[in-house]
Amino acid sequence: MNLDLAVLLDLVGVFFFAVSGSLLAARKGFDMIGSLLLGSMVGLGGGVVRDVILAAGPPAAFSNPLYLLPPLLAAALVYFLPRSVERGSRLLLTFDASGLALFCLTGTRKALEAGMNPVAAVLLGVTTAVGGGVLRDITANEVPRLFDPHDLYAIPAMVGAVLTAGLWSLGWLNLVTGPVVVVAVFMLRMLALRFGWHSPLAARSWILSRRRRAFRRD
Amino acid sequence: MNLDLAVLLDLVGVFFFAVSGSLLAARKGFDMIGSLLLGSMVGLGGGVVRDVILAAGPPAAFSNPLYLLPPLLAAALVYFLPRSVERGSRLLLTFDASGLALFCLTGTRKALEAGMNPVAAVLLGVTTAVGGGVLRDITANEVPRLFDPHDLYAIPAMVGAVLTAGLWSLGWLNLVTGPVVVVAVFMLRMLALRFGWHSPLAARSWILSRRRRAFRRD
Amino acid sequence: MNLDLAVLLDLVGVFFFAVSGSLLAARKGFDMIGSLLLGSMVGLGGGVVRDVILAAGPPAAFSNPLYLLPPLLAAALVYFLPRSVERGSRLLLTFDASGLALFCLTGTRKALEAGMNPVAAVLLGVTTAVGGGVLRDITANEVPRLFDPHDLYAIPAMVGAVLTAGLWSLGWLNLVTGPVVVVAVFMLRMLALRFGWHSPLAARSWILSRRRRAFRRD
Repeated sequence: MNLDLAVLLDLVGVFFFAVSGSLLAARKGFDMIGSLLLGSMVGLGGGVVRDVILAAGPPAAFSNPLYLLPPLLAAALVYFLPRSVERGSRLLLTFDASGLALFCLTGTRKALEAGMNPVAAVLLGVTTAVGGGVLRDITANEVPRLFDPHDLYAIPAMVGAVLTAGLWSLGWLNLVTGPVVVVAVFMLRMLALRFGWHSPLAARSWILSRRRRAFRRD
Repeated sequence: MNLDLAVLLDLVGVFFFAVSGSLLAARKGFDMIGSLLLGSMVGLGGGVVRDVILAAGPPAAFSNPLYLLPPLLAAALVYFLPRSVERGSRLLLTFDASGLALFCLTGTRKALEAGMNPVAAVLLGVTTAVGGGVLRDITANEVPRLFDPHDLYAIPAMVGAVLTAGLWSLGWLNLVTGPVVVVAVFMLRMLALRFGWHSPLAARSWILSRRRRAFRRD
Repeated sequence: MNLDLAVLLDLVGVFFFAVSGSLLAARKGFDMIGSLLLGSMVGLGGGVVRDVILAAGPPAAFSNPLYLLPPLLAAALVYFLPRSVERGSRLLLTFDASGLALFCLTGTRKALEAGMNPVAAVLLGVTTAVGGGVLRDITANEVPRLFDPHDLYAIPAMVGAVLTAGLWSLGWLNLVTGPVVVVAVFMLRMLALRFGWHSPLAARSWILSRRRRAFRRD
């Protein structure tokens, strides 16, 4: 993968997350500017955190004006296609899953290229992939979906980041294996949503399993 | 504008935002220390985010001890003038608007001086201006005012940042035009509050316009 | 104190805060991955913010894989000892106080070693110590404990940071005085919890003291 393709993939990921932010803004009754700002925060937030932690100069989202196009496009799309907003949260989750799949590839790869060790690169890749969504949910005053015990959100991102770091270390990350990782993460995330896969609770306890049922009723 | 004046304007902006933070702390029933900490977070938060993104060494708020004076002064003011707290949210909004007006000038200018391109500088100026207020509202567990669909909050900051970047590029940013920008942003913000100006919703939809009325009743 | 001891103390502080995060995750009904992620955020968050502000390359939490062990250990501990979760919030507060005591020492010292002035070092030490807890409470959608008017949370951290900066400036920070500072901060925090010490409110006002009683009933 050459550099231009890496930037392009990053921009596509920004677009997917920005759509999820603008859709949430529309469902919360925010205005156009709020839609643009929440979309920008979700789309660019994870990458800005990644670049600040890599400590390699101003983040790409600020130094490259191209990064402003995806949030603008996302806000316009949500404004002119209001039917999509009424179609409930499934669309939001699909766009969110696409962004997640792309960002755990591009985030991990960028950290490896910057010279981080593989463990740190996996950690940064996961942070990039889940960061924007956590910012989105905190801003919308909700417990982040990342922590929903009925859902696998972080595990697909971890799998994708580990695969990316493994392939990169072996010199096997290329135009065939990269897309395979992205599709695998996306499929894993959508299957988890479809079949309600989830991981064990944080503590084995009778009281807590009761708490879990309470959470489900919400 | 020489450097000392730039720092002085920045300190005045910190003071205005810190007062808005301490006023909110008082109305939420926080204690003196909470008032000082929330004031510091609101006053210094936007600038710290700006300086971290500019990646030019430790943020001014940490390297220059003078930046601690405005939050201390703001917390003392709110403590010794409790009547102002009872006067409702109008005072908070006025201080908030003053900080917004000053920070979109100083934030944009600092980004331009650090060599950012004008688009990035506008983005950073807006981030500086709205960042502290978003931190304040998230910490106080509310949906940030930035996203209130009955209010123009980001647009005055965007106008101010674009004007600042335009004047700076033309070499026209000086002691006459700078204050004009600040006063224009402040007036625009106060007029928007007074007359309830707002921008179109994020999506054109019958369901969502109903949602908007629901928001108003809160 | 040589460097290895400093890293070890930092890791112990990360562990204490990570346990407080995993305990909260368990009580909120999050799953194992959520427990690991919230523990990591609380344990590593304050230090990452500190290192980003110090602007001295990638944060230790990312460049040194050892920092991932304490959150893993904390999540496993909470999973295999579920009784501790049922024992209510006292255990969480004890681990939180231990982390607070260690981090105001290690945070202040690291800032001083990086060449910050003593005032900035105290500010950064307090930010390191309270940062993780604020992230924890915001993510769990609560007003941060830092702002609870019935509790002293920031003052012990401030005392510890000032003591550390004072001892370091005099050249007296060593293996005897360091632990004394940590124990003093921990005791001050636990005594404040035990006896309900608190500081004056943010504003002197009849209305606000009524608000305070309302807060207490929550």
